[in-house]
Amino acid sequence: MNKTADRLYRSPEDKNIEDNFQFILFGGTGDLAHNKIIPAFYNLAAKDILPDHYTIIATGRRYDNKNEYLNNLYSSIENKKEKIDNRTWQSLTDHIEYFQLSFKENNDFERLRKRLLQKSKEDKISNRIFYLATAPKFFAEIAKKLKEFNLLNAGFEHSDSRLVIEKPFGHDFESAKKLNNTLNDIFSEKNIFRIDHYLGKEMIQNIMVIRLSNPIFRALWNREHIDNIQIYLNESEGVKDRGKYYDDTGVIKDMFQNHILQVLSLIAMEEPANLSAQEISDKKVEVFKELADNDLSDIDKHIVRGQYDSNTVNGEKIKAYRQEKQINSESQTATFMALKLFLNNDRWRNVPIYLKSGKRLNKKEAAIAVEFKDNFHSSYLQNQKLDSNLLLIKIQPEEGVSLRFNTRKPASNNKIIPVKMEFCQSCQQFFNSPENYEGLIYDMIEGDKTLFTSWEEVSYSWKFIDKIQQKCEEENIELHNYPALSEGPEAADRLLEADGRKWLDKELS
Amino acid sequence: MNKTADRLYRSPEDKNIEDNFQFILFGGTGDLAHNKIIPAFYNLAAKDILPDHYTIIATGRRYDNKNEYLNNLYSSIENKKEKIDNRTWQSLTDHIEYFQLSFKENNDFERLRKRLLQKSKEDKISNRIFYLATAPKFFAEIAKKLKEFNLLNAGFEHSDSRLVIEKPFGHDFESAKKLNNTLNDIFSEKNIFRIDHYLGKEMIQNIMVIRLSNPIFRALWNREHIDNIQIYLNESEGVKDRGKYYDDTGVIKDMFQNHILQVLSLIAMEEPANLSAQEISDKKVEVFKELADNDLSDIDKHIVRGQYDSNTVNGEKIKAYRQEKQINSESQTATFMALKLFLNNDRWRNVPIYLKSGKRLNKKEAAIAVEFKDNFHSSYLQNQKLDSNLLLIKIQPEEGVSLRFNTRKPASNNKIIPVKMEFCQSCQQFFNSPENYEGLIYDMIEGDKTLFTSWEEVSYSWKFIDKIQQKCEEENIELHNYPALSEGPEAADRLLEADGRKWLDKELS
Repeated sequence: MNKTADRLYRSPEDKNIEDNFQFILFGGTGDLAHNKIIPAFYNLAAKDILPDHYTIIATGRRYDNKNEYLNNLYSSIENKKEKIDNRTWQSLTDHIEYFQLSFKENNDFERLRKRLLQKSKEDKISNRIFYLATAPKFFAEIAKKLKEFNLLNAGFEHSDSRLVIEKPFGHDFESAKKLNNTLNDIFSEKNIFRIDHYLGKEMIQNIMVIRLSNPIFRALWNREHIDNIQIYLNESEGVKDRGKYYDDTGVIKDMFQNHILQVLSLIAMEEPANLSAQEISDKKVEVFKELADNDLSDIDKHIVRGQYDSNTVNGEKIKAYRQEKQINSESQTATFMALKLFLNNDRWRNVPIYLKSGKRLNKKEAAIAVEFKDNFHSSYLQNQKLDSNLLLIKIQPEEGVSLRFNTRKPASNNKIIPVKMEFCQSCQQFFNSPENYEGLIYDMIEGDKTLFTSWEEVSYSWKFIDKIQQKCEEENIELHNYPALSEGPEAADRLLEADGRKWLDKELS
Repeated sequence: MNKTADRLYRSPEDKNIEDNFQFILFGGTGDLAHNKIIPAFYNLAAKDILPDHYTIIATGRRYDNKNEYLNNLYSSIENKKEKIDNRTWQSLTDHIEYFQLSFKENNDFERLRKRLLQKSKEDKISNRIFYLATAPKFFAEIAKKLKEFNLLNAGFEHSDSRLVIEKPFGHDFESAKKLNNTLNDIFSEKNIFRIDHYLGKEMIQNIMVIRLSNPIFRALWNREHIDNIQIYLNESEGVKDRGKYYDDTGVIKDMFQNHILQVLSLIAMEEPANLSAQEISDKKVEVFKELADNDLSDIDKHIVRGQYDSNTVNGEKIKAYRQEKQINSESQTATFMALKLFLNNDRWRNVPIYLKSGKRLNKKEAAIAVEFKDNFHSSYLQNQKLDSNLLLIKIQPEEGVSLRFNTRKPASNNKIIPVKMEFCQSCQQFFNSPENYEGLIYDMIEGDKTLFTSWEEVSYSWKFIDKIQQKCEEENIELHNYPALSEGPEAADRLLEADGRKWLDKELS
């Protein structure tokens, strides 16, 4: 692979991916496969990035034959695209096999082994990837069967197979550890790719670049200059069809344990000495370790939990969380959480970090706001109260960067007003960002683990989340109702007001 | 005056200018009066900022009567505006008197004294302003006559009249000092308003605000973080009808001695302790004093002089400077100059400051570029050569601020590319910037000298310019020809290339 070439844009001379691979997809008939994984392969095929020889073996129970499966895939991709390019579709489907399989049937795994063996004789492969896009309860079971039926080495004896595993990785530290031990009996850590699809987002991948390749931001990236950091991942949708999963999980496990803590680690970590996945992971792990140092003894001053209630918006009745499908009508699951925490190190000591995420909020918006201190104002300003300098890294729906700064209002007596410099990445045609999964699939084929979470990251983030969960239960932390499609519970505002601050997503909107 | 109100936007409750004033305009029939001064009054009238009682006495020889004068003014304003509002025009012209006067005729000054006396009986005035918008050679002569014929105190005995004087203020230090001594015999320094119309530009007035009201820029505003500063005032026009004036003056006196050094002083000065005009001027004077410390012994390494030659652009023949009207056909006057200098103080030691201005360049563009050092790059970047961080303050034609920073090219292997965050002030409807002269006239009526140059500023800038002139003559510095409407002489590029740098106006275009 030509590492200096653009990753997801084909250079005219050569395919980006040079190796032939087998990609065995468990959960091949599920939502993730239909909506994310196969569409990502379609996009990679459209960009002509895939090699001449590769095989996607999609396993599932639902369909009887390949045609039925492909018809359903076609519809899924059609729903996402304006128009499917038939040549691309043909070239992709030539490489897809549908393999009917039940996780319970040993015989199916035996059949799969034979198929892999045979296929490996046809094409000399250099890469085999097992992708577990199934319900989490099957992760361990499938992994064990892969070993039991010798699927890792069938026709592929001199190299290592890789395992890709979707989230959630466990539901607390103990279950995650148990799962990890099982996987480690079968795959070495270097071959386990734990997906956090948030890391596939362009602006998340941009965080390190913005921090480290800009001398002006790098010089300011510490507690001397930064007043506070806010990360908000606001969703407007409810739980939709995922009620059963969500009611066991809640916002803390669905968003905080993975996405939000990952984003925080990229923002807050010490600078990596090089670009290796290991070095970056090590620096992130330091952050996760320090998180657990937060004194949560007065947790009621650090956390606000909420659950959405019914509401009527534009004449439309919006269901309460407890009225959603598969949700316990007395559920105590939080669909909203705001959290204040500190990192006790030289860079960030006493800089509050505010995290927020919730479902059924009035706006879908994810961003990182870095608010600078105002102790560098000049006496020149006399008594004018000024807005702070604010660096905003916009993750979605818009991707971009903005910097709020103060300027003189034209024609005024030096009246000072805040304005924004804007860089909108997603507005620019030539910056056509790929889907998260395109890059992640590319990286798992190429063996680049930078955008996947290591066991250490997962384990320490669970320890921190477990500690919060435990404290919340001990202290019987209140669950605030908030109207669906509102700004969330008012208690979240009071959390910051107590510090003389505001949520910047509200201030900026 | 309500200093907290917006200066040039009327608040509904009251007029912005509360005082009644007399405004006696010498050169009332000249270009400046027609194109700048009276149009500025028109705009102030349109915004309903002017008080109920005021009088503009426009003196001149050219016209016989007020109607003839007003018709010519109307045409001038019509040329600048899409449409003249007749009510505004009427309200303005009700306050204009035309007074036929020759600078040579003592009798005319005697008549003017009587008119002022009479007018002051009709309206109790609190303010009298003499505005010298004439050729510079008449400045001293007119000022002396104002005293001789007692025009300062006619009907206005308990207060001070003000003198507004256009540029150029002298043609070297000695002549400026002589002029200033003459003026000081008649007006105290606090009543002398020396115009540098560049200081009326919105983005020039914004420099101090940007520097001082933004903690992030304030923290970086020194030699630890800034690699170099560039100020460029590029003009595309030739000398037009001003050949005689220009051939005696050249770019060094026409642009450097005043506009460019003023901009530099605002960018480089130490922070003022308060907003008073005196304090700001004191801080600017420190810069002018330090400029003269530049060792110009190897001036050929600090300066590039140029003169535009003929050219053919899009089939149109463009005249050489020496072919222009009123220009000596063997003129050695520079129409272009690039200058490298240093300020030997703790903030700026060893930070080169590059200044550039020229006529008949390929683009009309004025801006200040602050280029940050790249010694804050992280090892993370490995061998990628990155663009510098760059703060650009755009003066004209666009007004605004941009910040060049590095970002990850989407879908790439962490390929880093420069992009810009932009704030375009002049693009925004509600930021409708007023003309330079509106604010300057407002300030001279209100007695605010912040945007006018003090004698100390003028005297030290002349000392520096005289030193350069003298050195250039001693060393017989080359005059490079450059084609009209080109980028200027190549020697100017070599000036920066010798330091491993580039002109940022070229890099950014």
